[in-house]
Amino acid sequence: MNDITLSVAQKALEAAIKKAEELGTKMDIAIVDAGANLKAFVRMDGAWLGSIDIAIRKARTARFFDMETGEIGKLSQPGGPLYHIEHSNGGLITFPGGIPIRNSQGEVIGGIGVSGSTVENDHAVALAGVEAIRSLI
Amino acid sequence: MNDITLSVAQKALEAAIKKAEELGTKMDIAIVDAGANLKAFVRMDGAWLGSIDIAIRKARTARFFDMETGEIGKLSQPGGPLYHIEHSNGGLITFPGGIPIRNSQGEVIGGIGVSGSTVENDHAVALAGVEAIRSLI
Amino acid sequence: MNDITLSVAQKALEAAIKKAEELGTKMDIAIVDAGANLKAFVRMDGAWLGSIDIAIRKARTARFFDMETGEIGKLSQPGGPLYHIEHSNGGLITFPGGIPIRNSQGEVIGGIGVSGSTVENDHAVALAGVEAIRSLI
Amino acid sequence: MNDITLSVAQKALEAAIKKAEELGTKMDIAIVDAGANLKAFVRMDGAWLGSIDIAIRKARTARFFDMETGEIGKLSQPGGPLYHIEHSNGGLITFPGGIPIRNSQGEVIGGIGVSGSTVENDHAVALAGVEAIRSLI
Repeated sequence: MNDITLSVAQKALEAAIKKAEELGTKMDIAIVDAGANLKAFVRMDGAWLGSIDIAIRKARTARFFDMETGEIGKLSQPGGPLYHIEHSNGGLITFPGGIPIRNSQGEVIGGIGVSGSTVENDHAVALAGVEAIRSLI
Repeated sequence: MNDITLSVAQKALEAAIKKAEELGTKMDIAIVDAGANLKAFVRMDGAWLGSIDIAIRKARTARFFDMETGEIGKLSQPGGPLYHIEHSNGGLITFPGGIPIRNSQGEVIGGIGVSGSTVENDHAVALAGVEAIRSLI
Repeated sequence: MNDITLSVAQKALEAAIKKAEELGTKMDIAIVDAGANLKAFVRMDGAWLGSIDIAIRKARTARFFDMETGEIGKLSQPGGPLYHIEHSNGGLITFPGGIPIRNSQGEVIGGIGVSGSTVENDHAVALAGVEAIRSLI
Repeated sequence: MNDITLSVAQKALEAAIKKAEELGTKMDIAIVDAGANLKAFVRMDGAWLGSIDIAIRKARTARFFDMETGEIGKLSQPGGPLYHIEHSNGGLITFPGGIPIRNSQGEVIGGIGVSGSTVENDHAVALAGVEAIRSLI
């Protein structure tokens, strides 16, 4: 699979929602395609309004650099090599919760971004989404 | 129901996708809540990339003015009373495909926006989404 | 070929520049990939500064809707079905000069946008770019 | 030469691509003219999508201040004299990878920006581009 399909994206969203419920959290969850364009999005009832944009930016940031958003955030601190990279691309989000989606050949075919709780929970929910579709792509 | 739930939004999306498939079209479909904030979004495989933004703007425009987007477009023509209203709110889309979602008391609790084909098809798919959830809200 | 390569994009740019020179014009020429992301760009010496942005937007607009930009412009006039579609996607350009790039299976794998002269010349230069790579993709 | 020509810009791009290949990296490479306006751009196959914008901003930032981007970054840290200068000009990038292009009289006639790997590699590729055209301008 070269680019994520809607069917696969929806399975990732379902798994992410399930994980969010297990954690007792309310999340905004976004999936982008290989071109970093929005493919699917859901906001769970009661999830933060401000997390709509953050979830989408996390998904896009993860695909922009084929890297988990939290990894970029480690490099963009004051004194770090990528300080203030967040000013590019109309605004990046570089804390955890965004993960690239790779097919079985290791090629990036999209990204998932989650926002609505602690960054640890955001990351866990994103990971649940990615893992649920691993065997399908 | 004062505000659309994710469960209801997903039913609207399913019905809209079904209608889009019946029409042989590929659509971007967005649903916003009572606050005009994105609730759910899907892009069917092969649907136009440029319609991501248009579908979301149609849904928001419909909720912004509690009116079908095509009705606003009739008023925004040269010489019309709302000429160039599209410049407001960061950019409106005022051709058909956006419909407010009303509960059984007639209160607007969200909006749906569809883009990806002719404006007639866009409107038909949005309408299918709205009608599918009428009895639930 | 699912997505345009740099090698192919450069061949399209060369052919477009050659055509621009034959016409005695100075052009800005942009190529985007299947995801509507910039792949390659050149500004001929003396070409308009304002056409940098227009060339890029034409290429993106053509890929956004898999359609020549001039076709969209016919539909976006006052009274037309897509009136003011230009307000979407951060600003579209809907006059001629943008053409989608299709592979031998008819799939869109990118877009070319040209700006710097009359729209007729812009279109002719874009077309020269597309035709030069037809046998390669 | 008062302003970089397309011919010279293309030679810089070729040399930069060659260096990127030697380093085993995939880069986005942008060149701006004396007016800080985009002159030429290439994205190598597989290079990061998020680096399109960063490469262009690095090239512009280098020309905006006639200084290597990394030098500005040293001054923009918390407590530094140019703290948060990145907020100006619609967003600057101030880590290494952007270098002003000077003619034989030492006048700045453009800038190059490279993004796609470590900042050390980005800088090395930008430098290779600048050095390749030194005798021509």
